[in-house]
Amino acid sequence: MKIKAGFLQFQPVFGDIGQNISTIREMLNDKEFDLMVLPELCTTGYQFVSRDEALSLSEPAEGALGPALQELAERKSSVIVAGFAEKNGNEVFNSAMAMGPDGVLSVYRKAHLFFKEKDIFRPGNTPFEPVDTKQGYRLGTMICFDWIFPEAARSLALGGASVIAHSANLVLPWCQQAMFARALENRIFIITANRFGTEDRDPASPLTFTGGSQIMAPDGEVLAKAGPAEAVVMIREIDLNASNPQLNPMNHLFNDCRPDLYRL
Amino acid sequence: MKIKAGFLQFQPVFGDIGQNISTIREMLNDKEFDLMVLPELCTTGYQFVSRDEALSLSEPAEGALGPALQELAERKSSVIVAGFAEKNGNEVFNSAMAMGPDGVLSVYRKAHLFFKEKDIFRPGNTPFEPVDTKQGYRLGTMICFDWIFPEAARSLALGGASVIAHSANLVLPWCQQAMFARALENRIFIITANRFGTEDRDPASPLTFTGGSQIMAPDGEVLAKAGPAEAVVMIREIDLNASNPQLNPMNHLFNDCRPDLYRL
Repeated sequence: MKIKAGFLQFQPVFGDIGQNISTIREMLNDKEFDLMVLPELCTTGYQFVSRDEALSLSEPAEGALGPALQELAERKSSVIVAGFAEKNGNEVFNSAMAMGPDGVLSVYRKAHLFFKEKDIFRPGNTPFEPVDTKQGYRLGTMICFDWIFPEAARSLALGGASVIAHSANLVLPWCQQAMFARALENRIFIITANRFGTEDRDPASPLTFTGGSQIMAPDGEVLAKAGPAEAVVMIREIDLNASNPQLNPMNHLFNDCRPDLYRL
Repeated sequence: MKIKAGFLQFQPVFGDIGQNISTIREMLNDKEFDLMVLPELCTTGYQFVSRDEALSLSEPAEGALGPALQELAERKSSVIVAGFAEKNGNEVFNSAMAMGPDGVLSVYRKAHLFFKEKDIFRPGNTPFEPVDTKQGYRLGTMICFDWIFPEAARSLALGGASVIAHSANLVLPWCQQAMFARALENRIFIITANRFGTEDRDPASPLTFTGGSQIMAPDGEVLAKAGPAEAVVMIREIDLNASNPQLNPMNHLFNDCRPDLYRL
């Protein structure tokens, strides 16, 4: 099955949810796609200086972002995955919603929090489980630092995902290159939507995000790649049938696993 | 702890165990090292045309290779890991022994057989469990196609290995690049010893091995890299303290795992 899938890379304005949603809407307005991946925390920016600040900028999936994404998803007959600061009572999760024309398909809450995120967010409590889309494929979601844990993408692939939407705010230089192994070992498409720009709200540790959003095929080929600091939407037609753990007639990457010999 | 670790890359002569052992001995004779990794099936070559042929060329660890390695290991006060066709009754495993000055430390039997190897070898039955060395570090072993299963390296790392000896006969172009993720996700050294050259004993499917043996650091840096078709020994001093799953003060790559959310 062929779908048009892509990412949106941009630089959110810290704390200005309305402005960021406008930018996203504008960047996607004239685009055609079946699946679109947006960066992590795309409505708020990243570097919260306190849990209270994050709480004050967080919203449930039904907040401002949800309806805006649904309007777009409906108009484009598509699925849009977007990272956001999710309010849940008095707690904040670093989450990503998958929005379809008929509403929210899933909300994934980041399981592996990076560095000082541990001071801000509650660790995720949603399993790495893909969701069915209307078009008939299964979609997995992970967020940023989840990349370094092979168990995350593996779980999504074992759950039948043929594509992973990977919303990111990457500051380390490794992920884009490491996705080569993630794609190959699971024979899965991975779309990493990263942001760019610098945030220095904590002047002691300013953060520069690395851009370089990409669409990677199950054989590790980079089908599209953004620059390190450009606002851009890139879309490619991808054939989800290429996501197949049957590597050759004698090797099936999941059935060949030997859990009897692993220590996990 | 610093050790001198390296690989030997060469082109075995198919079926000539004595000749191959001589070559290995000659290539290592004037070298100093604490840990040396040799390719998969380094005494026999790779492309057996039948299980019977493999059986006829196989030996137990105590065969010709074992004593030759022990003599070298003793003389160099080192550990040598080497792939060989292991005879076990009427069965053949694709194995790698780790040999120390005092004898065999471990025999690992390849768990994930690649393609037609399934017609030749019995699947391994030894767990991915590292062994203690005299020098005080833990050494993991894996063979060739094990690379594509993240569970293999992960198991060795969780078992306390700070370095993985990876004996290989690689024909696919992916492994060397994918080791970047394996090293990073486990913060572990990985030494891939590959062979080079072509075997066309099955004229319908000649195999060309890709060389490119390498020493990779826990941060993904390639510390040494052989060409695609050269007989060479490369040795680097590596600091095993760099193998540390504590990525930063707040992220420990093993303790941060969320098995409650994985499907494995």
